[in-house]
Amino acid sequence: MLIGMLLPMLVAAQTDQLWLANQPKESGWCNLYSDLSKKDLTEQVIEKELAQYFASVNRVKVASDKVANVRIFIDKDKTDHLGAEGFKIRRAYPIDIVAETPAGALYGVYAYLRMMRLGVEIPESLVERPAFQVRILNHWDNPDGSVERGYAGRSIWFADGKINFRSDIETYARANASVGINGTVIDNVNADPKVLSSEMLNDIKTVADRLRPYNIKVYLAVNFSSPAALGGLKTSDPLDKDVIDWWQKKVDEIYTLIPDFGGFLVKANSEGLPGPMDFGRTHADGANMLAKALKPHNGIVMWRAFVYNPQGGDRAKQAYYEFMPLDGKFDDNVIIQIKNGPVDFQPREPFSPLFGAMKNTQTMAELQITQEYLGYSDHLCYLGTMWKEFMDYPSFHDGKSVIETTLNQKLTAFSAVANTGTMKNWCGYVMAQSNWYAFGRLAWNPNLSARAIAKEWVMQTITKDEKAVNTICDIMMQSREAVTDYMTPLGLHHLMGWSDHWGPEPWTDIPGAREDWLPRYYHKADKIGLGFNRSSKNGGSNAVEQYQEPLRTMYDDPQLCPKELVLWFHHLPWDYYFNDGKTLWQSLNDHYNGGVEQVIKFQKTWQSLKGSVPESIFKEVESKLQVQLDEAQWWRDGCMLYFQTFSNMPLSFTPKYTLEQCKAKLRTKAYVDRQKD
Amino acid sequence: MLIGMLLPMLVAAQTDQLWLANQPKESGWCNLYSDLSKKDLTEQVIEKELAQYFASVNRVKVASDKVANVRIFIDKDKTDHLGAEGFKIRRAYPIDIVAETPAGALYGVYAYLRMMRLGVEIPESLVERPAFQVRILNHWDNPDGSVERGYAGRSIWFADGKINFRSDIETYARANASVGINGTVIDNVNADPKVLSSEMLNDIKTVADRLRPYNIKVYLAVNFSSPAALGGLKTSDPLDKDVIDWWQKKVDEIYTLIPDFGGFLVKANSEGLPGPMDFGRTHADGANMLAKALKPHNGIVMWRAFVYNPQGGDRAKQAYYEFMPLDGKFDDNVIIQIKNGPVDFQPREPFSPLFGAMKNTQTMAELQITQEYLGYSDHLCYLGTMWKEFMDYPSFHDGKSVIETTLNQKLTAFSAVANTGTMKNWCGYVMAQSNWYAFGRLAWNPNLSARAIAKEWVMQTITKDEKAVNTICDIMMQSREAVTDYMTPLGLHHLMGWSDHWGPEPWTDIPGAREDWLPRYYHKADKIGLGFNRSSKNGGSNAVEQYQEPLRTMYDDPQLCPKELVLWFHHLPWDYYFNDGKTLWQSLNDHYNGGVEQVIKFQKTWQSLKGSVPESIFKEVESKLQVQLDEAQWWRDGCMLYFQTFSNMPLSFTPKYTLEQCKAKLRTKAYVDRQKD
Repeated sequence: MLIGMLLPMLVAAQTDQLWLANQPKESGWCNLYSDLSKKDLTEQVIEKELAQYFASVNRVKVASDKVANVRIFIDKDKTDHLGAEGFKIRRAYPIDIVAETPAGALYGVYAYLRMMRLGVEIPESLVERPAFQVRILNHWDNPDGSVERGYAGRSIWFADGKINFRSDIETYARANASVGINGTVIDNVNADPKVLSSEMLNDIKTVADRLRPYNIKVYLAVNFSSPAALGGLKTSDPLDKDVIDWWQKKVDEIYTLIPDFGGFLVKANSEGLPGPMDFGRTHADGANMLAKALKPHNGIVMWRAFVYNPQGGDRAKQAYYEFMPLDGKFDDNVIIQIKNGPVDFQPREPFSPLFGAMKNTQTMAELQITQEYLGYSDHLCYLGTMWKEFMDYPSFHDGKSVIETTLNQKLTAFSAVANTGTMKNWCGYVMAQSNWYAFGRLAWNPNLSARAIAKEWVMQTITKDEKAVNTICDIMMQSREAVTDYMTPLGLHHLMGWSDHWGPEPWTDIPGAREDWLPRYYHKADKIGLGFNRSSKNGGSNAVEQYQEPLRTMYDDPQLCPKELVLWFHHLPWDYYFNDGKTLWQSLNDHYNGGVEQVIKFQKTWQSLKGSVPESIFKEVESKLQVQLDEAQWWRDGCMLYFQTFSNMPLSFTPKYTLEQCKAKLRTKAYVDRQKD
Repeated sequence: MLIGMLLPMLVAAQTDQLWLANQPKESGWCNLYSDLSKKDLTEQVIEKELAQYFASVNRVKVASDKVANVRIFIDKDKTDHLGAEGFKIRRAYPIDIVAETPAGALYGVYAYLRMMRLGVEIPESLVERPAFQVRILNHWDNPDGSVERGYAGRSIWFADGKINFRSDIETYARANASVGINGTVIDNVNADPKVLSSEMLNDIKTVADRLRPYNIKVYLAVNFSSPAALGGLKTSDPLDKDVIDWWQKKVDEIYTLIPDFGGFLVKANSEGLPGPMDFGRTHADGANMLAKALKPHNGIVMWRAFVYNPQGGDRAKQAYYEFMPLDGKFDDNVIIQIKNGPVDFQPREPFSPLFGAMKNTQTMAELQITQEYLGYSDHLCYLGTMWKEFMDYPSFHDGKSVIETTLNQKLTAFSAVANTGTMKNWCGYVMAQSNWYAFGRLAWNPNLSARAIAKEWVMQTITKDEKAVNTICDIMMQSREAVTDYMTPLGLHHLMGWSDHWGPEPWTDIPGAREDWLPRYYHKADKIGLGFNRSSKNGGSNAVEQYQEPLRTMYDDPQLCPKELVLWFHHLPWDYYFNDGKTLWQSLNDHYNGGVEQVIKFQKTWQSLKGSVPESIFKEVESKLQVQLDEAQWWRDGCMLYFQTFSNMPLSFTPKYTLEQCKAKLRTKAYVDRQKD
């Protein structure tokens, strides 16, 4: 219809298609030559993807490959050493995409189409191989359809105790494959034994079948006491013969259904979950038992290092203490999955000292895409910067950066907790899609810059207007620091609301609660000052000892410790002076209020984009920024007014809320609304 | 006259009396008992000082010391180990001041009066001993009456080639003695041989006589070629017998006139000045020759380490290279005087790596009170924070801080270049007096905080109104960072105007000029980025190697290097991203403009003080802040517009000046007006 056709492209942003929405066709046709069989499922995906970009796709035959403008060759001789997932693109007429496998060809096609969409010149010759073998999402989805820490509706995987067959798995798979993600753990690490029931596995098989053409393997998070809870055994002791048998049979059952099943993710002896230590065994005993069952099928075990208990001293030190003695004791298809920081996905943490410390154990990073501690799907918070800070940080182990300590292994992997849900836009916020995108790109190539990734994403998702792209990227790049400033600046952490992790609640006091789940355990505000003394001095926990020099000495000295981490490692007096002549109190004021002012600046900047971004996205971000501003003010006021009860010093800004209002706001159930479908 | 008496105290601030102006008498009388002879010149000073505070002072006799409310005892048995300059104050009725020497008694009296003026409760028992033996000002005053880097008029020491006898030496001496300064080098380190002429020495004797009652020794900066230039010898070779004889006789002549003469300060083989290397000798040869002449009289040699030459590679490394091989070769009455930073009194430098490096050589710090690079006497810039940053910085040599590396020696000293001149208020700006005060207090006690010193000074100089004191201290504490921000943030340095060191001139290009005197040598702006690569990588000068671990590794890595020093050690791309998500360019914008905004904030805050500070001071600061704002804008605009010619990136603030205007402004002679009497 003519009227419809006159509507500018800008109006209808297809954010349900993520970064793969239809864009103006730049080229009318594609004559495709391909070495792959037309029946190959991946080949069919390739053709579909080309058809998304080109107005038409015609396959040409071997004899007529000269008329092709895109050619796909399978390099059987492996002359380019492209490996199982690498590709080579040669620019000429035609464009040649060379790979050793269909998967490699698929990634080559996505890379080619990305360059076309971005308007980047195709290089004469480009070879890419993924940095990590396993590039995997962790979905914290429960069989009942709820999503732990999900802010985008219900589970895309489960509903009412069964697999959710209504989900648009193909779009999910396209999105992942387009950035190179090749694995997905579809269920929560707080795992329900029933995911291993035969009934469930039969349904999971259909999921695996739908993901396979996109080179995505299914993995499962498993409950360590499944043999007892599901299998009816008397124990789940990993050294018990019956238990070993049970797992072996269960694994064999899985592989019969899903021959390329990826493996298990295990949260054991952590936050109340069962594990081998319940039976006097070690993490290694537990992991290796599962690994041996998986090994014949090439499956792997990702065993989480997220362990701590209220009697174990400084929580930030415990994973190191628990895992270091086990170094070298894990099988070669086991990999230890470590969160980026030593506590739990806070807006800023130092890197976990476990990275690089175990010289004879394979390790991998676990990031969090879903914004559990960073404003849910309501705050604009691009995480590319945070992850790059973590990945590139010099660890002073082998390799120059933290992430390099996870690369020089037989088995390599990179994981993140997903932010997907059943909401139309998948992530609850168009801006939150960027973090999914960024994770995938970094898993493929950790050397990409946060800015370059942001730019790619904006151009594919929002606009190609150069000025607008730069403006949006500027906001994205500074957004994580803004969130850190108004939530937990200067190394503060874990000040958020009890259980829901929503809003500020540094004052929480719940009778009988685990002390290490209370904010006061972390901020240690008192009449003297603020911060957790993790130094080697004055009764500090000496967490600094887990870092290599020069970091150990640097963190140990408040004058050398990076200011943005200083309260992580030190309890400083309220009137402690930094070298810039500001007291701790003044610095807190400036950071908290600066974070709020930054959101106001984002709002103003966003207004300048009216007309150069699709109207629907403009309005979505405009309205979310208003929520973000309000919550930023709430965070600022809640934290500062609470700290003021200790410091008795004046605020240098005018709060919007009183402390009582901050507390009352927390008790509203506004956050629940944001989790509905 | 009645009308005069009605004028409130606030109106007439006696800034010509520095921090010792008359204040409302809190106590009407002083019955003084003293062990000292009435004829002792220091005793006379003590009585004069008490008379400044009390309405009347009556000396009481031994027999009647029970009626005294202040008693001075000389502890001949040295029971309290107070040393030559220490004191003990006992609060009781009366107040007892105990010392081993008249000097100690004098310092005790000043401490007592300071506490009285500040309204601080006198402790039951207080023992103080100075941290450094030699606490000394360096005056860069020339015999013609000019002052190098002086911004407060003409020399207080010299006029027309002779000693200036019109100066109010007593007020100068009181001010110094009240904060414990016990030495003064009255002539410029760029020394004129004629200061050693017999005629001049006869006049200097009178200066020494006037300073002696205040326990202040005179020292002289000497020209190393004096034997030739003044004595008519053929050489000034330090190993030449005639030269040795000449110096010996000259020293003997000095001590005949001034028996407590302190010694020599020498700038040799530095910036064109003569020195032992002109004769193939070493710094040690030169210093020891002078030291041997002074030794019998207990005189010392302060030999400056401020050496560099255009062929010597990175200027920041040269002092270390030149002096390290001489470690252990200096006599025990020689002390090496090292500027705080490795270049030259910039708004922010890392500490000089020479501190602590020479294990068998005595060293001392040279600070700069006069604001050569910090806005002359026009910018409010409290240096207590800068000096504390330097002094307390962990050096990772013996002792935990930089300043401690200069304390554990037979001979200890602490020096600073003075900011005095013939202007009525001595320093050209009341606020600049605070830096003289702070230097003295830190030389006595390096553990005092910058804030505590600022508070003392404000209460003695400006107001005792608590709110106003805190407000002024807040401004002072943040003032140095503001100056650094609008002049040379992020480790930039040496961007100032040629020769006069006034205003921004990063663009300077003077045909035939020494490259290491041009700003471009330091900022290295180019199409790629900004900053001096002093790292160990990518062709850097490797200046980092002169620091101990962990500093070496920390400075060597741009991610670990403190952001405020990053361009000192690294050449970073304009679009380099810091962990806060800002590019180098954005950070430069924010710091430069932030510095300007800080001055505007100071102005607003200052306005709030109207009525609570003396009118004359209110107006002086008000008017100076206007000059400071204009020059801050000039610095910001000059530097940023110049850097923009390389970066081609947009400014995020609206400049007041164009680049051409900035250049034109530099060529005005406005600065000359500020140096007039």
